Amino acid sequence: MPESTRIAEVHVTPILISDPPLLNVQGVHQPYTPRTIVEVVTENGMSGIGETYGDTDYLTIAQAFGPELVGRPLTARNDLFARVAAAAAEVDIARIDNTVVAEGLRGARTEVKLVHSVVSAFEVALLDALGHETGLPVHALLGGKVRDRVEYSGYLFYRWAAHPLPGEPEDDWGAALDPAGVVAQAQRFADRYGFRSFKLKGGAFAPEQEVAAVHALHEAFPDAPLRLDPNGAWSVETSLRVAAELEGVAEYLEDPTAGTEQMARVAARTSLPLATNMCVTALDEVPAAFAADAVQVVLSDHHYWGGLRATQDLAAICRTHGKQLSMHSNTHLGISLAAMTHVAATIPDLDHACDTHRPWQTEDVITAPHTFRDGCVEVTDAPGLGIELDRDSLARLHRRWLDGDVRDRDDAAAMRRVCPEWQAPSFPVW
Amino acid sequence: MPESTRIAEVHVTPILISDPPLLNVQGVHQPYTPRTIVEVVTENGMSGIGETYGDTDYLTIAQAFGPELVGRPLTARNDLFARVAAAAAEVDIARIDNTVVAEGLRGARTEVKLVHSVVSAFEVALLDALGHETGLPVHALLGGKVRDRVEYSGYLFYRWAAHPLPGEPEDDWGAALDPAGVVAQAQRFADRYGFRSFKLKGGAFAPEQEVAAVHALHEAFPDAPLRLDPNGAWSVETSLRVAAELEGVAEYLEDPTAGTEQMARVAARTSLPLATNMCVTALDEVPAAFAADAVQVVLSDHHYWGGLRATQDLAAICRTHGKQLSMHSNTHLGISLAAMTHVAATIPDLDHACDTHRPWQTEDVITAPHTFRDGCVEVTDAPGLGIELDRDSLARLHRRWLDGDVRDRDDAAAMRRVCPEWQAPSFPVW
Repeated sequence: MPESTRIAEVHVTPILISDPPLLNVQGVHQPYTPRTIVEVVTENGMSGIGETYGDTDYLTIAQAFGPELVGRPLTARNDLFARVAAAAAEVDIARIDNTVVAEGLRGARTEVKLVHSVVSAFEVALLDALGHETGLPVHALLGGKVRDRVEYSGYLFYRWAAHPLPGEPEDDWGAALDPAGVVAQAQRFADRYGFRSFKLKGGAFAPEQEVAAVHALHEAFPDAPLRLDPNGAWSVETSLRVAAELEGVAEYLEDPTAGTEQMARVAARTSLPLATNMCVTALDEVPAAFAADAVQVVLSDHHYWGGLRATQDLAAICRTHGKQLSMHSNTHLGISLAAMTHVAATIPDLDHACDTHRPWQTEDVITAPHTFRDGCVEVTDAPGLGIELDRDSLARLHRRWLDGDVRDRDDAAAMRRVCPEWQAPSFPVW
Repeated sequence: MPESTRIAEVHVTPILISDPPLLNVQGVHQPYTPRTIVEVVTENGMSGIGETYGDTDYLTIAQAFGPELVGRPLTARNDLFARVAAAAAEVDIARIDNTVVAEGLRGARTEVKLVHSVVSAFEVALLDALGHETGLPVHALLGGKVRDRVEYSGYLFYRWAAHPLPGEPEDDWGAALDPAGVVAQAQRFADRYGFRSFKLKGGAFAPEQEVAAVHALHEAFPDAPLRLDPNGAWSVETSLRVAAELEGVAEYLEDPTAGTEQMARVAARTSLPLATNMCVTALDEVPAAFAADAVQVVLSDHHYWGGLRATQDLAAICRTHGKQLSMHSNTHLGISLAAMTHVAATIPDLDHACDTHRPWQTEDVITAPHTFRDGCVEVTDAPGLGIELDRDSLARLHRRWLDGDVRDRDDAAAMRRVCPEWQAPSFPVW
């Protein structure tokens, strides 16, 4: 292909996807959650796709930026951050400064993070299209795979059997509201997908019950690396008590407490590694957290960090400072699973199984969703991401978005449908 | 191209190139200096070239590794470090541990750095060949250029008019042994190449004379950013005295004193930014230097850091920690100038003009050496590096290597030919 190959079309499509009633410290997943699907088409008719958050602010920025990509070189990715940031500066989003405004599930909310998450969808779409133009898989465009399959961990959730209202999305997983339910869920994950490590989303119940669940998992799967993630719900004291109970049992403890300063206080007094996707989620959070040795494992996430190349950058930063690397997941579809798998395949020192929500999703926008074997996704050598957009599904889920009124993920609102008195908690919860 | 495209041939060719009698704290450049030229050829007959240091240990590792690349995928670059390190472990090189063994021009000498420098030649060659296979310029394979030309600084040296013996390489630049000579050299650089910033290699004379030269340059080129680099020759006290005299005159001071600890002591007491290509030259040197704020500008060098992608990694690391990025040069030919230009074009926050020795070289192994206009090299959109190997030149310079006995750069030995009593200095020199 000539270097002058240009982008001819950009499509930014908001969708709503079904989501099960998974519990966390902020509430419960809504029956439908928004995602943004990006498609770029080159002047040669080659297509590339990406996906990211679909909440209003992300979507607004993506819709503002999309048209600006038309006419740009297909290979131009290094200027994406500056260009998306410029687009974001022009639109009406909920303005945020670069300090903590909410203790949500992804830490401090900043405009830089919004921009990065929008960049990620376009970067992945451009790489996918470039792969189709050149015949190369995305991993090869990123310097080549160093492994042929990428291991994921089984992502366990406390959950209700069903959403509260009739007609809302259903599945047959049943409830998991105690240690036995968690172990049963893990067993089904192991049987169906072969997962050999497990992460339990915590913060839904008192720490004692969640520790008991991890112990029960350890008993049922004595060789499986285990993780527990309460999304910062605990005090330093509670975190240390949990850490003491899980030393030798858990692989790492993820965001037991909120913020770098408290994480550092926990880290100083436990041998259990601490992981984070809340207090180190952008470059400007790295120096303080690393200087304080607040975390030992950073959870990469190409949506957070601005794409697949930025994820490789993060790996280099972690390598520099002797930090381990793992991978975070938010609710996502097969486009992002493909992107996660390609980039994970390129990073030599990604030593932990990656997180993925994908097994919980019952819908997708690709024609052939990935399969997990032995907990792994095979790294494809097909051009681009190696997937194909299912245009019928995309149209159907976009129609749901058009017809529906869910525009932002709001786990607290979903919880209030069942517990009207429920409020998003103040931290520490325990 | 299919992902399965393989490397069919690898050629590792040592050469000797002419070098003028440029002075530094370690001595003087020899009449000839070794370089290693790497060529990879794909099974489709596409070629890619790279260049790196030619000293014995680099060459030994490159020759050991080269054959192992045959049969590997053209796109596989992420495993180069591990594979070259494995090859290095098997060969007879001057063993070095990961501590300082010599205060040379590139700081502590470690096996990791040797490996990185060898990796860089192969990585560049693979990218060049991939560019030829796909039709894309190397900058596009690295995420695209963010500028159309890359600015270089005029690299000034104290120098003799000629090497001491008849028949050795000559040029018409004449001697530069005092401030007036330095200014005259700069003027010729400005007239011929349009350089708008200058770096003076110091450490050759007493600091007072070198400060006087920088002041003379400032008088002659009042708008030009100026740098002085004595390669760690000064004590902390001398460095601070020089810094005080150059505040408001110099853009930055490069490695005034040796080692992170002393650099930090200087940095703490001057507003002049300190740059380094000696105390931060590999990832393991970053944390201590950054924690101590020993440097404010890191000089990238794709030979040091293990290639063009590693240079982008370094940019991300510097961005993370609020450090500026500039670019270092050692004696090099047009292959490396092409590589430097491509990678520099991809880094948004490379805010300083890059260093290059290339104008001092009278020979090259490419058919059409680059031209500098307004101090800049244009970023080509031709496939690969956009250059072509001059096989006649390569053969001639390789013949010189075969016929000659220079195997390692040794500036002290070259100095002893003129000053028999001369010894490599102990630091600090002043």
